[in-house]
Amino acid sequence: TVQHLFKQIFKASLEIQEDDNRKALLVSRKKKQEDTIVDLKGETIGDGNQRLILGPCSVESYEQVYEVAKAMKAQGLKLLRGGAFKPRTSPYDFQGLGKEGLEILKRVADELDMVVISEIVSPKDVEMATEYIDVIQIGARNMQNFELLKEVGKVDKPVLLKRGLSATIDEFINAAEYISSEGNSNIMLCERGIRTYEKATRNTLDISAVPILKQETHLPVLVDVTHSTGRRDLLLPTAKAALAIGADAVMAEVHPDPAVALSDSAQQMNIPQFQDFLTSLRDSGLYKY
Amino acid sequence: TVQHLFKQIFKASLEIQEDDNRKALLVSRKKKQEDTIVDLKGETIGDGNQRLILGPCSVESYEQVYEVAKAMKAQGLKLLRGGAFKPRTSPYDFQGLGKEGLEILKRVADELDMVVISEIVSPKDVEMATEYIDVIQIGARNMQNFELLKEVGKVDKPVLLKRGLSATIDEFINAAEYISSEGNSNIMLCERGIRTYEKATRNTLDISAVPILKQETHLPVLVDVTHSTGRRDLLLPTAKAALAIGADAVMAEVHPDPAVALSDSAQQMNIPQFQDFLTSLRDSGLYKY
Amino acid sequence: TVQHLFKQIFKASLEIQEDDNRKALLVSRKKKQEDTIVDLKGETIGDGNQRLILGPCSVESYEQVYEVAKAMKAQGLKLLRGGAFKPRTSPYDFQGLGKEGLEILKRVADELDMVVISEIVSPKDVEMATEYIDVIQIGARNMQNFELLKEVGKVDKPVLLKRGLSATIDEFINAAEYISSEGNSNIMLCERGIRTYEKATRNTLDISAVPILKQETHLPVLVDVTHSTGRRDLLLPTAKAALAIGADAVMAEVHPDPAVALSDSAQQMNIPQFQDFLTSLRDSGLYKY
Amino acid sequence: TVQHLFKQIFKASLEIQEDDNRKALLVSRKKKQEDTIVDLKGETIGDGNQRLILGPCSVESYEQVYEVAKAMKAQGLKLLRGGAFKPRTSPYDFQGLGKEGLEILKRVADELDMVVISEIVSPKDVEMATEYIDVIQIGARNMQNFELLKEVGKVDKPVLLKRGLSATIDEFINAAEYISSEGNSNIMLCERGIRTYEKATRNTLDISAVPILKQETHLPVLVDVTHSTGRRDLLLPTAKAALAIGADAVMAEVHPDPAVALSDSAQQMNIPQFQDFLTSLRDSGLYKY
Repeated sequence: TVQHLFKQIFKASLEIQEDDNRKALLVSRKKKQEDTIVDLKGETIGDGNQRLILGPCSVESYEQVYEVAKAMKAQGLKLLRGGAFKPRTSPYDFQGLGKEGLEILKRVADELDMVVISEIVSPKDVEMATEYIDVIQIGARNMQNFELLKEVGKVDKPVLLKRGLSATIDEFINAAEYISSEGNSNIMLCERGIRTYEKATRNTLDISAVPILKQETHLPVLVDVTHSTGRRDLLLPTAKAALAIGADAVMAEVHPDPAVALSDSAQQMNIPQFQDFLTSLRDSGLYKY
Repeated sequence: TVQHLFKQIFKASLEIQEDDNRKALLVSRKKKQEDTIVDLKGETIGDGNQRLILGPCSVESYEQVYEVAKAMKAQGLKLLRGGAFKPRTSPYDFQGLGKEGLEILKRVADELDMVVISEIVSPKDVEMATEYIDVIQIGARNMQNFELLKEVGKVDKPVLLKRGLSATIDEFINAAEYISSEGNSNIMLCERGIRTYEKATRNTLDISAVPILKQETHLPVLVDVTHSTGRRDLLLPTAKAALAIGADAVMAEVHPDPAVALSDSAQQMNIPQFQDFLTSLRDSGLYKY
Repeated sequence: TVQHLFKQIFKASLEIQEDDNRKALLVSRKKKQEDTIVDLKGETIGDGNQRLILGPCSVESYEQVYEVAKAMKAQGLKLLRGGAFKPRTSPYDFQGLGKEGLEILKRVADELDMVVISEIVSPKDVEMATEYIDVIQIGARNMQNFELLKEVGKVDKPVLLKRGLSATIDEFINAAEYISSEGNSNIMLCERGIRTYEKATRNTLDISAVPILKQETHLPVLVDVTHSTGRRDLLLPTAKAALAIGADAVMAEVHPDPAVALSDSAQQMNIPQFQDFLTSLRDSGLYKY
Repeated sequence: TVQHLFKQIFKASLEIQEDDNRKALLVSRKKKQEDTIVDLKGETIGDGNQRLILGPCSVESYEQVYEVAKAMKAQGLKLLRGGAFKPRTSPYDFQGLGKEGLEILKRVADELDMVVISEIVSPKDVEMATEYIDVIQIGARNMQNFELLKEVGKVDKPVLLKRGLSATIDEFINAAEYISSEGNSNIMLCERGIRTYEKATRNTLDISAVPILKQETHLPVLVDVTHSTGRRDLLLPTAKAALAIGADAVMAEVHPDPAVALSDSAQQMNIPQFQDFLTSLRDSGLYKY
């Protein structure tokens, strides 16, 4: 057991070193005490105000995006999401409009002064995308697509990084580090539910991840209530929980006519539902904006 | 495929029947529209007020319990938890004081006018326990100990039923039905985290379960933030999330000196931490009492 | 960091102690090098021969059990399982014939010289059960029903302990220790699948648990292929894997007419399927008996 | 409820259509009855013979790869794996030798007449890689990197597709379909363990996935015992289980000196261990080659 003690002393030295590594992570709170505030054309994320990021799952047409954006604008909301490149389980499902989708987003952004966020799935599209959108989203399936992470680390656009389907918090933080280590430190982390045995919801919203990520890193932390739950009836209560626990922004999907949406039809809100959602959040007193 | 259609018609009939069964569940919202309000010596749970249920993990001594209860009482809190029978992974870990623990709880309850809640683990102890405690808790490991559920269904004491370690919401509701079907409808459901791959927290708090359980049943729904997270630093943020999402009560562990606690030492609050916790909850504006 | 080293030295001392505890576990290989061989009226389990434990999910009638037992006997198989007390998710599902079921099992055992195994769910039934059955099974839902474990630890009957729905291997071993610490060391461990996100099978057969349990403990290790997979078409391949990896016995369900079974109808084999199953196992060369 | 019936009839029609879609999957057994046999310079996979695919986790030097390959060759084994591009959790961990690693693999392949398999992580490297390696591996983290899947679908090289960390079997099959739908049908599926709550092993080997994948698709199915278990002591028993259940090949890691390996040091076999492993498999009678 003396031998064991020496082994432990050695192990302790190793851990001190690992701890130093963690201290060295650019995204860690140990490296930088102050919160990172991401500025999206004047909409700040991470400064104590709380934001809503809304929009359709997929960009389907100019009219569709415009209609959602107009309804958002009427409520003073500017952060618009919409998928142009859609990673889908089956190759035969709708794969998104691609670059045409980005053009639609840009046109709507220009006309209504919105900030647009869209997922990019291929390293080769990153450079091109920066001409159309304001925030590059990395989706859950690509959280450990390290080539893509490195590529978005090289451009001068904020990145919204979603947690992988079954990523640990540690893996999530390291994925952000891949981006940061290439030079881009405008990163927002988004909890979007993890895969568990429970099937009452599409995924299990890991609400505790929010305070952990805020403690461990200096980055803004978002919660996507649509993908976490996959249920329209849970968007409002989970949004309240997310705001109460300190999320810097809440993401949810809004579509003019969810029943005919080309993806995620069961979980998007229509425009009146979005308005009720917003009113309820404001009335709750939980939403600091 | 005509054959297939007929098969589906048959299946549909089956589902109608199953749906009827669900409608027939005594604990379901379909069976009873109004919320069940559980009255614990004047402390109501389920009526829109939100409660805190606090106390040590294990009952260790009269002094220990008294000290926590006194601190709670000073803050106007009456719902005291404490474990007398402790289900532990290893047979060589502290197994609780047993009946002596119940006696301590009763003595403190009598002296300070508290409402006491304690876990019972054996069907044969249920009757005896009703003489000492005000609420019988069924722990996570016993959520599908159907003999125990039936036994507590026969007594005239409220039951606090915890969700199993990896129980689905459907299984949880059916466990409550085991109790209700024996005649006892004073049941409170408690989400306490589920087992997932993520080890940053002891369990993963399934916050979405709260609104689902409130929709599907008419029973009060509680959140145990201590066992969900296993981390003292997450008690406050998760308590806020629980209150915001509509939990009827929040449970957390408080011990005069957690460092020497005989169980769960790493996650209990001491008395000053409890007071800060309470102040923060009150200041947050989230806590409706 | 000197402080850190001392902390680690302290921690190392703690770990040495924990390691000693593990060494002290009665069921551990460290405590006893030789394999425990459980003798069931001459049918040995754990001595290198491999056994099959078969029978209906639920005991429904004397005729039903007799028919299965006769078919088994014709093949030289004596280990008969059948549920008399059925822990079911819903209180309105068939709960088993209870003591009458045990009487049926005993009658068939006496007539055909079979060894009968049945689950007991309540501490108060343990003593009674020893008069009817040869092996007491503790089901997955009761793996941490410690009162029940202690009770079966006090009787002189072999115990077949199933792994809990989401029990870790460490918890499983400690559950066996609860039995052993009360004096009964005739324990068989049964892997029966764990709860995961994957729904192609009812549970996920954790095949690696078999060699781990054989390494860590001196107890026989069984695999229940029916409950692991919940699919009749996977019984044969998973049984082969279980035998190949060194399981001491394989459990599977056989029913004269699965379509009308009162439980688990989709996954039981009928008698000709059982005969094919057995022939295939024998032909595979994997089955050492 | 008549309304409900019509709804069900509509749903049934939908399901018929979905079933047709599944029938239409190019990789499905419904589309093509016969097993796909992948020919790797004369080493066939999927024809009833069972293969071993071995080699170091990472390519570290010519000498290292040569030493492993020579030991394999001496045993008549030709299928050599080795990582040149390493997807690692942290950006500061060893990322592989990149193209230099592929060159080393090719040199060893040429000198010893081996078949080499290596993971490619970026769509832009696929074309280049075809000049150096015989099989392109898609790793678990990239199973839903659809851009990469489409790219390997366009080249004339066999693809070894690993199951994602927490991919369902259905998602896994659809990932293969992404490759096949681009024209490349030489695909091998590799089960490598899924992420669960159980931490006794690095992942949980989902052994049942093997017969399910063989039923649902016509593709060869492999089992990676190293990544499933993460434990050297479990390589042999899980390899036996994999062969017994019908895997077409088993993958495991071999390194001349695992203690100094730049990745996965705890789970690779050294050369004498590999020889014992092979001898044991041959002696077991399970390995059909």
